[in-house]
Amino acid sequence: MKKLSFVFFVLIGIEANAQKQDYPIQPVAFTNVKLTDHFWTSRIETNRTVTIPASFERCKTTGRVKNFEMAAEHKGKFCTVYPFDDTDIYKTIEGASYSLAVHPDEKLQTYLDSLITIIGNAQEPDGYLYTARSIDPLHPISAAGPERWINEQSSSHELYNCGHMFEAAAAHYMATGKRNFLNIALKNADLLVRTFGPDKKHVAPGHEIVEMGLVRLYRITGKRAYLDLAKFFIDERGKKQYNKKSKNVFENGVYWQDDKPVIEQDEAEGHAVRAMYLYSGMADVAALTGDKQYLAAIDKIWDNMVGKKMYVQGSIGAVGDGERFGDNYELPNTTAYNETCAAIGSVFWNQRMFLLHGDAKYIDVLEKTLYNGLISGVGLDGKSFFYTNAMQIQDNFNHPDIERERSGWFTCSCCPTNVARLIPSVPGYMYAQNGKDIYVNLFISGTANVTVNNSKVKITQQNNYPWNGDLAFTVAPSKAMDMNVRIRIPGWAQNEAIPSDLYRYQHQNNENVTIKINGEPVQYHMEKGYAVLAKKWKKNDRIEVNLPMEVRRVTANAKLPNDDNKVALQRGPMMYCAEWKDNFGKAANIIVPENTKFTTQYEGDLLNGVTVLKADVKSVVIDDSGQNIHTKNQTLTAIPYYAWANRGKGEMMVWFPQQVKYIDLLTSENTVK
Amino acid sequence: MKKLSFVFFVLIGIEANAQKQDYPIQPVAFTNVKLTDHFWTSRIETNRTVTIPASFERCKTTGRVKNFEMAAEHKGKFCTVYPFDDTDIYKTIEGASYSLAVHPDEKLQTYLDSLITIIGNAQEPDGYLYTARSIDPLHPISAAGPERWINEQSSSHELYNCGHMFEAAAAHYMATGKRNFLNIALKNADLLVRTFGPDKKHVAPGHEIVEMGLVRLYRITGKRAYLDLAKFFIDERGKKQYNKKSKNVFENGVYWQDDKPVIEQDEAEGHAVRAMYLYSGMADVAALTGDKQYLAAIDKIWDNMVGKKMYVQGSIGAVGDGERFGDNYELPNTTAYNETCAAIGSVFWNQRMFLLHGDAKYIDVLEKTLYNGLISGVGLDGKSFFYTNAMQIQDNFNHPDIERERSGWFTCSCCPTNVARLIPSVPGYMYAQNGKDIYVNLFISGTANVTVNNSKVKITQQNNYPWNGDLAFTVAPSKAMDMNVRIRIPGWAQNEAIPSDLYRYQHQNNENVTIKINGEPVQYHMEKGYAVLAKKWKKNDRIEVNLPMEVRRVTANAKLPNDDNKVALQRGPMMYCAEWKDNFGKAANIIVPENTKFTTQYEGDLLNGVTVLKADVKSVVIDDSGQNIHTKNQTLTAIPYYAWANRGKGEMMVWFPQQVKYIDLLTSENTVK
Repeated sequence: MKKLSFVFFVLIGIEANAQKQDYPIQPVAFTNVKLTDHFWTSRIETNRTVTIPASFERCKTTGRVKNFEMAAEHKGKFCTVYPFDDTDIYKTIEGASYSLAVHPDEKLQTYLDSLITIIGNAQEPDGYLYTARSIDPLHPISAAGPERWINEQSSSHELYNCGHMFEAAAAHYMATGKRNFLNIALKNADLLVRTFGPDKKHVAPGHEIVEMGLVRLYRITGKRAYLDLAKFFIDERGKKQYNKKSKNVFENGVYWQDDKPVIEQDEAEGHAVRAMYLYSGMADVAALTGDKQYLAAIDKIWDNMVGKKMYVQGSIGAVGDGERFGDNYELPNTTAYNETCAAIGSVFWNQRMFLLHGDAKYIDVLEKTLYNGLISGVGLDGKSFFYTNAMQIQDNFNHPDIERERSGWFTCSCCPTNVARLIPSVPGYMYAQNGKDIYVNLFISGTANVTVNNSKVKITQQNNYPWNGDLAFTVAPSKAMDMNVRIRIPGWAQNEAIPSDLYRYQHQNNENVTIKINGEPVQYHMEKGYAVLAKKWKKNDRIEVNLPMEVRRVTANAKLPNDDNKVALQRGPMMYCAEWKDNFGKAANIIVPENTKFTTQYEGDLLNGVTVLKADVKSVVIDDSGQNIHTKNQTLTAIPYYAWANRGKGEMMVWFPQQVKYIDLLTSENTVK
Repeated sequence: MKKLSFVFFVLIGIEANAQKQDYPIQPVAFTNVKLTDHFWTSRIETNRTVTIPASFERCKTTGRVKNFEMAAEHKGKFCTVYPFDDTDIYKTIEGASYSLAVHPDEKLQTYLDSLITIIGNAQEPDGYLYTARSIDPLHPISAAGPERWINEQSSSHELYNCGHMFEAAAAHYMATGKRNFLNIALKNADLLVRTFGPDKKHVAPGHEIVEMGLVRLYRITGKRAYLDLAKFFIDERGKKQYNKKSKNVFENGVYWQDDKPVIEQDEAEGHAVRAMYLYSGMADVAALTGDKQYLAAIDKIWDNMVGKKMYVQGSIGAVGDGERFGDNYELPNTTAYNETCAAIGSVFWNQRMFLLHGDAKYIDVLEKTLYNGLISGVGLDGKSFFYTNAMQIQDNFNHPDIERERSGWFTCSCCPTNVARLIPSVPGYMYAQNGKDIYVNLFISGTANVTVNNSKVKITQQNNYPWNGDLAFTVAPSKAMDMNVRIRIPGWAQNEAIPSDLYRYQHQNNENVTIKINGEPVQYHMEKGYAVLAKKWKKNDRIEVNLPMEVRRVTANAKLPNDDNKVALQRGPMMYCAEWKDNFGKAANIIVPENTKFTTQYEGDLLNGVTVLKADVKSVVIDDSGQNIHTKNQTLTAIPYYAWANRGKGEMMVWFPQQVKYIDLLTSENTVK
């Protein structure tokens, strides 16, 4: 593992051949951060020991590996369902590579090499790599089409496969220093460069990600053609003729973010995962080329998404039919789709928006997504998953778009393998820097090594976040120096500070944020959501930040009628829900009056350790005859949203009626036995 | 009024020059029926003394008459809103003519003549009559278009004006024997014959009725060209290119019943009034030409309408946007549109379907519509109207498509003037005949003079219908003769006999229909919904029919989720509702359990005399805090649906939850004061 010592890079990508123009802010690589944090190390360890091995096992048992072997020999029959099943191997290799970088494992590295050999064997001589076609070019599976690339926009996902391969190969190269996978990816990327371009084939990739992948290869190689091709693919959007009058997103191009040129787009639209990957790709290209039109477009789209299309727990992609964004303010609770992959994509995009703008509001959204609607996608066991993330589950309401319980891998296993690659990269989202500014974005215990003006600075965090708001940071520069330590003060810790008017806090905070340096309270000024602590920092200066952790009542904009007169519960970054298990078998019958008092309690044995909220509330009860109803007093126990559905199947609610009339009796029926 | 003595004809049309091929069954003209019935004579008298005079007054004060005067002089500015405002005068003349036929009134006749002179003056030399254009051909109102007929399909309604003129002129001629209005109509019809046809102009009339009107003129004149033109107009439908993929009914032609040729249509679709007039016109043409394809189409469409698109009280046209039929089973209660004109059109069409087929099911629908969703359209005062007919009104629910209270005339006053012409024609729907078969369709006290095999037969009904099911008929032929007296046994009087599976009776009847002749119970056989009483009838034979008048619980097909586990209440032909006024200020909070016992009570002072239903039921109550709910016992008082909204504004429900969980608390909120 010596090779690892020389590589310090990043998910986003500090690369060997750094370009002059780039994100003004650079993230501190996850490899430079060592965690001691209970909340995250347990997850990363479960991901390493359970999720990743299970993913590899599953890639084998389902035939995903066999597809590559058959492709190498050009015989047999594609033996899984989707031509993009290749990506599950790529994504698991990507996750395993991140894991390797912080947790050396010879055996795993050898296994990756064996897989990479199998992948390489399946690559055609000109670089093309797509098992569904290579197995039998004359009889590829129907989605692929009779010729290369012709079904790309609709169903073949050839470029989607390429994009995930590029991401994985880059990660593997950066983590191990080995070029075996990278060379396969570059050979494929060179084929794309020869195939597509202004004077060559034109296509708007059907499921974006090749753009981000090409940027990653560009960062490693400095080969401008990769960046140019990424921009070419992005600029191909909006050129096809669609039925613009149609409201059907498949007919009008919206599903693929292809209804108009990207620089004219101003709304988060279509398939939510594709949208996140497109906007992330646009951010990358904007950072690397200085394209102001891209920037203007993604700024508008972000405002639209956060202001009109995001659920209170950070999930996006409300509509199941098309796994997509709905109309503005179309955020139904009963049928919320909220794909886990879309939450992951939102983390990618919000990190990039932060790197462009240096504003904490993007990290506020990232944190909300990460701690709620994203990690809800994987069970505490590391091997049960949600593809969708429901907003409410009721005994008397079923819908094909919602999952009432977690499953193992799906036939389309995009979410489990996306989780596998996201979780180990979390330390990479904690810090960033720009000159003498150090950004502290996430509050996770551990130590980071940062280089500021060629001097090393060690930053240590000690906290019990997200359960406790007392944060302690030790700053240890190798020599005393002027730095601006910018600590994100989350929007939720400030009165009324939610980055849009979609949700608001019902009451003002009682507590304020306090900051001490070396035990002394300090005055600080806020800039773009950061407390800016500017001074000559010397070894072991200690910063204490106290974030108020009272229970916050969140109410929704009147434009969200489904949340009318309802309240959601938040404490710190965590959104809460009531699950049947803690609430007498029901959840949809609970009323949380406006004057409800909450107590909080950390329960170490519950759900791997969570802080629960408790309150005296009311619930409605209907008798056996079905003709009598009354209200009873009961204790509400609320758990963090991410932790639901780890104890069996039953009701779950995020939004609680504040008055009995906002209860839907039909779905909340609670017969007295 | 001597002239009246020679005319005995019909709404539908027994005409001077009878054609050989026609409806197999002929209605007995309303002029041959003299009513003594409390329920209907009071309505017809209110219509004569209040509705019709108010309509004429309003035609004057709003400028509708002035439009004709300006048109005659080709100067001024069209001074009302819609170019089809001309029809309100025509429709009121039509109603007044029916009224004149049974209630001579020299002054009214003189007034009609003065109006007809004004109308005639507005007719252009070639027969064109359309005030909006004639006032100023260069600057007609925008809907009319710069040339004649070019906006006919979309907005000019030129042929709609013609159709109502033909209907009115025919009625006036038949009622008075005067040709002054008829000649205007014929001159206009001749212009249409010269203008439209296979080798001339083609158009699918935008708002159908000209087809029915042309048939009426054909019946009077025997001029085949009118019938041919009616058929031509009908056959023009379905020839225009629309965007067939669009779901927007204005883009795909469905709104105008123009998406496909009429003989391929199999669903009641588009604007409901237009649909009813089209299907009525098709029935007329099918009867007069023997066209079997028309017949097959309207048979299918009828099955669709009654089986999938009709509310429980007979209303049609569920969707406000486009005043139209929704999809199959799209019958929402909260936003039901249910235009009064559509109910009137349904009466026209169902009468014609009966005349074609001799089946009582069409009269069952006609009766349901007439006694419920149609007469609900006019207030007991005869001068307040509903354009729409709501299915439920709740304090906490508003929607632009529903009316919470009655109004005077609307800017578009189609419904009030349609009511004015329908009410006095009701006696014309009571009887029909075919050879020696006499059909008794409606149960209204009075005497009818029928001619059977050239002999006169007097039939007298004595009953207190719809409040009482004891019906008595006296049959008095001028000489003893063989006749089949076919008495309709309503579907509601027979177990499970509703003419579709859209609704059903929850429990079997306890009582059966009994029939006596001259005091002796008789065996009879049923044929197409009629009890066939075949014998040699002699003077003053007396028939007694007892229809069981128990309160019936109606439940809906599971395909109507809004009615799930709810019950509607029916007694005889009347559907009932609960109105706030009789139910402690609320209605949406009432539960009607399955075992509820009902009592009935005729209240002569209430709402001009109605039988009310009473029962001990439950209701839900929410306290002032909004956080406590309980069930209480209360008495339900239900009134006939048609009678609601005559005592101020408040809640009204037709469908009652059978269990508390089907109550929508949000809209049923009942705060204890």
